[in-house]
Amino acid sequence: MTLLETTNPSAADGRGEPWISFDTDPDHYRHWKLSIDGPVATLAMDTDEDGGLHPGYALKLNSYDLGVDIELHDAVQRLRFEHPEVRAVVLTSAKDGVFCAGANIKMLAQASHPLKVNFCKLTNETRLAIEEASASSGQVYLAAVNGAASGGGYEIALATEHILLVDDGASAVSLPEVPLLGVLPGTGGLTRLTDKRKVRPDRADFVSTVAEGVRGQRALGWGLVDELAPKSKLAEAARARAEELAARSDRPADATGVALPPLERELAADRIAYPNLTVELDRSLGVARFTVRGPSEGGPDDPEAVAALGAAWWPLALARELDDAILLLRFNQPEIGTWVLRSQGDLEAVAAVDRVLLAHAGHWLIREVTLYLKRTLKRLELSARSLITLVEPGSCFAGTLLELVLAADRSIMLEGEAEETDAPPATLLVDGMNLGPLPGSNGLTRLQRRFVGHPEALEAVVARLDEPLEAAEAEALGLVTFIYDEIDFEDEVRLAVEERASLSPDALTGMEANLRFGGPETMETRIFGRLSAWQNWIFQRHNADGEDGALRRFGTGQRPRFDRKRV
Amino acid sequence: MTLLETTNPSAADGRGEPWISFDTDPDHYRHWKLSIDGPVATLAMDTDEDGGLHPGYALKLNSYDLGVDIELHDAVQRLRFEHPEVRAVVLTSAKDGVFCAGANIKMLAQASHPLKVNFCKLTNETRLAIEEASASSGQVYLAAVNGAASGGGYEIALATEHILLVDDGASAVSLPEVPLLGVLPGTGGLTRLTDKRKVRPDRADFVSTVAEGVRGQRALGWGLVDELAPKSKLAEAARARAEELAARSDRPADATGVALPPLERELAADRIAYPNLTVELDRSLGVARFTVRGPSEGGPDDPEAVAALGAAWWPLALARELDDAILLLRFNQPEIGTWVLRSQGDLEAVAAVDRVLLAHAGHWLIREVTLYLKRTLKRLELSARSLITLVEPGSCFAGTLLELVLAADRSIMLEGEAEETDAPPATLLVDGMNLGPLPGSNGLTRLQRRFVGHPEALEAVVARLDEPLEAAEAEALGLVTFIYDEIDFEDEVRLAVEERASLSPDALTGMEANLRFGGPETMETRIFGRLSAWQNWIFQRHNADGEDGALRRFGTGQRPRFDRKRV
Repeated sequence: MTLLETTNPSAADGRGEPWISFDTDPDHYRHWKLSIDGPVATLAMDTDEDGGLHPGYALKLNSYDLGVDIELHDAVQRLRFEHPEVRAVVLTSAKDGVFCAGANIKMLAQASHPLKVNFCKLTNETRLAIEEASASSGQVYLAAVNGAASGGGYEIALATEHILLVDDGASAVSLPEVPLLGVLPGTGGLTRLTDKRKVRPDRADFVSTVAEGVRGQRALGWGLVDELAPKSKLAEAARARAEELAARSDRPADATGVALPPLERELAADRIAYPNLTVELDRSLGVARFTVRGPSEGGPDDPEAVAALGAAWWPLALARELDDAILLLRFNQPEIGTWVLRSQGDLEAVAAVDRVLLAHAGHWLIREVTLYLKRTLKRLELSARSLITLVEPGSCFAGTLLELVLAADRSIMLEGEAEETDAPPATLLVDGMNLGPLPGSNGLTRLQRRFVGHPEALEAVVARLDEPLEAAEAEALGLVTFIYDEIDFEDEVRLAVEERASLSPDALTGMEANLRFGGPETMETRIFGRLSAWQNWIFQRHNADGEDGALRRFGTGQRPRFDRKRV
Repeated sequence: MTLLETTNPSAADGRGEPWISFDTDPDHYRHWKLSIDGPVATLAMDTDEDGGLHPGYALKLNSYDLGVDIELHDAVQRLRFEHPEVRAVVLTSAKDGVFCAGANIKMLAQASHPLKVNFCKLTNETRLAIEEASASSGQVYLAAVNGAASGGGYEIALATEHILLVDDGASAVSLPEVPLLGVLPGTGGLTRLTDKRKVRPDRADFVSTVAEGVRGQRALGWGLVDELAPKSKLAEAARARAEELAARSDRPADATGVALPPLERELAADRIAYPNLTVELDRSLGVARFTVRGPSEGGPDDPEAVAALGAAWWPLALARELDDAILLLRFNQPEIGTWVLRSQGDLEAVAAVDRVLLAHAGHWLIREVTLYLKRTLKRLELSARSLITLVEPGSCFAGTLLELVLAADRSIMLEGEAEETDAPPATLLVDGMNLGPLPGSNGLTRLQRRFVGHPEALEAVVARLDEPLEAAEAEALGLVTFIYDEIDFEDEVRLAVEERASLSPDALTGMEANLRFGGPETMETRIFGRLSAWQNWIFQRHNADGEDGALRRFGTGQRPRFDRKRV
């Protein structure tokens, strides 16, 4: 958690504020104490009151801000890669009588709308990463709630698989956002009560409207926690439960972890460069141009060789770089509303890496790399930015990288050769990585989502597995939106990017949120839950409803003026 | 569609505007022409430019406002009950060269936020009612799109089962909301493209960002329409297709329809009274107190006797009255944020009506009554109001009426006798109407939704089918939230109602929208789609973020001030 020295000439407030960064490691944590004892790690929250990311508030009672959550995000990530021996993680508090008071309210009150939304999004992603570690990494999280757990504090506990609550007659779990703050629990509390813990909706209603929360036997009886323990026995009970859960894990006891060193990153006002990824910002158009570089040939082909390479192995290195770039742009460049994705490299070399990922999917490290790629691709789609992927000669969109094509709102492929390069015509390649290991937020693969209701189209794609596909074939199979030859390609791409730049960012965010996450929902819940919600928000936004918003300006001959921040 | 003479002393704008009402019938339509020819009805839009519900805009090019949609809502309803012989309905336009231009933009631009949201909600409900008629009533809708269908115009067509588009080289279907207005298609357009018509998401993205829309072969090839016809052949093709679809219907050719006469309704400033329902408004608390009266004994017990009674049959009469009251309150009383539901009557008499509904479920009229009850209960839950149901001695919450208990955010039952009444202790009764015929928006019955993840709890309830259950049993089975004896009941009810009145209406709306619609969705889509959306909206609302909003006032010792409109 730091604010980078590099200034940001177009920061939201125009004051050239330093960028929010996500660089940290346990030696630099100010708010968490990480300790490891055999198969059980303990992550104890102990916020430094004076350690807020911004001035103006004190992090009392283990209340948290973005900086606290960035450290948690880092710890969850490192435990997976650096500590294969850790099979259970106890989340607790190092402060007496309080577990966690949730997000700091003064911080929320002074935060801009974009910061609030981005903060909630990251905290949600981190809670989901905790659940994914429990479900898929053999690293199960528990919460030892040793004092009051309010709001976001209870929501952290809800992200674990087993909640122990101290039974001291006072300590309660609570969601006081509605009764005290007039907002919703922002990190999935309502949803986890009903969907994960199967708390009856009318009881969830009660829990969510009573500021003081619920403690003791009622909390246990209603399913708000899993176990009660007296204060003197809580740590012991948590350890016992952690060892039980650890015993079921398949993580190796004797493997060496992979260290995650600081990223090699050059950060300039309009450019972020890493070994495998460059992002160039075009501020006039509000576009970030991502270029992903594929792997070189002859990489490691067994898990031992991969472990020896460690963080330098291409898919892990790329996941870290892409993840970092996404977060930096989300938080620091809200006015860059369109992300254009390209790749450069050897299609076959990407496919070779995918074969390693697939052949050794059960190996703890290979599994972690795949899960990280999965999380990163989901983060891309949840970033409230328009995604346009361009497939050109010299690109390498195979398997894992093909997901960048399938994740895009619109993809455009150049058909045939291009004069300015010696490369042969662009091809795409579908492989096993597209058929299961990298599902999106709705649990479907991006191919499944693309062909919902058209199983025959999906079968036709699967029939061409592992074959390079030229533009006409890719279009016929439904893998890209449009194809153009060299004569039209640049113009069509320019038009698509300019069109996106001209539209209301609020409407685009809402539209994309509706179109990207089809699949397992009912139409009515989508219409009344999701769509109406976004619409309500948009209707109130200045971009639609303001004096110079699009709705008021329609038909006047004047163009609307937009606040271009995307959130 | 009318504005009632009765003035509303607390109308949103304080000007004592007349109430918006939903009273109309074909003789009074200004915007639609309904004609019936054997099994095929034609509903042709022909908006009266000067017939807007409010001054300030002209309904050109078949653009619509709430008044136009109220007529459509009425026509869809009457076709089901009054015309058993109609098996297919062709939606088209009586204007040359234009099908429908969608919601009137000037109307939208001048509408208040609550009116916009309520307008969209009703239009969505009406489109869903059209789809329900096609799916469940044997009355299938088609669209003969004889000119441009833009925005809401295309969305009306999308609500039908078969879209014929005129192939004249000019007429397009389009969703120009994002590119022209900076808002989303408000009536399910995005969702129906992907979920219903299975349009590929990247193509849906293109359709939703290109103002001029898509016509001819591309519209057909992408699945945006089902059939093309030259202008001279469109009516003929629509008729042929309608007759094909009509041939598959099970509606009787020779039955007599049930007329829906004007409701018997007394409307005063703080009271709405119908034969089977009274609603009293308590403006100081922001509460509407609904009292539903159960049926008398000895009602009809076969479909012929039911048909003879017609609109006076208790379940149909109640559905109409409840539906009307819900709509009147939604549109005219936005500051009444809590609806308290009671019933009075004979438990066994309600159960007897349910037995008729269940025994003759396949009869066209009985089926329509059940479907109407289903729609009305869904409308209740979608009204953005807190629902508290009270179960007291003298109440009759059996089967169909028990759904009012199960639909509530919170239910409170009085245990034992109450001094002020001679009635025996309150009982509830679960019957077959609770096990399938009345599902909510997520497709689950309210019992299923209540016990998601607890099949054993559902089984325990089913084991007690058709037995009156006293308070202790009802609580043990999980059918009510809390039970209190006479000594505590009034106080606890008062506290619950006062608590609700003290909370942020925005936060309550968002919270309830999250808790009411659990079930078939993934947690992540709910968190990122629904929850985040509501949260974005709420974060921007004055109630949370304003100078005197709850977030800013937290910890200052000052109470927040809320704008109490619910939307």
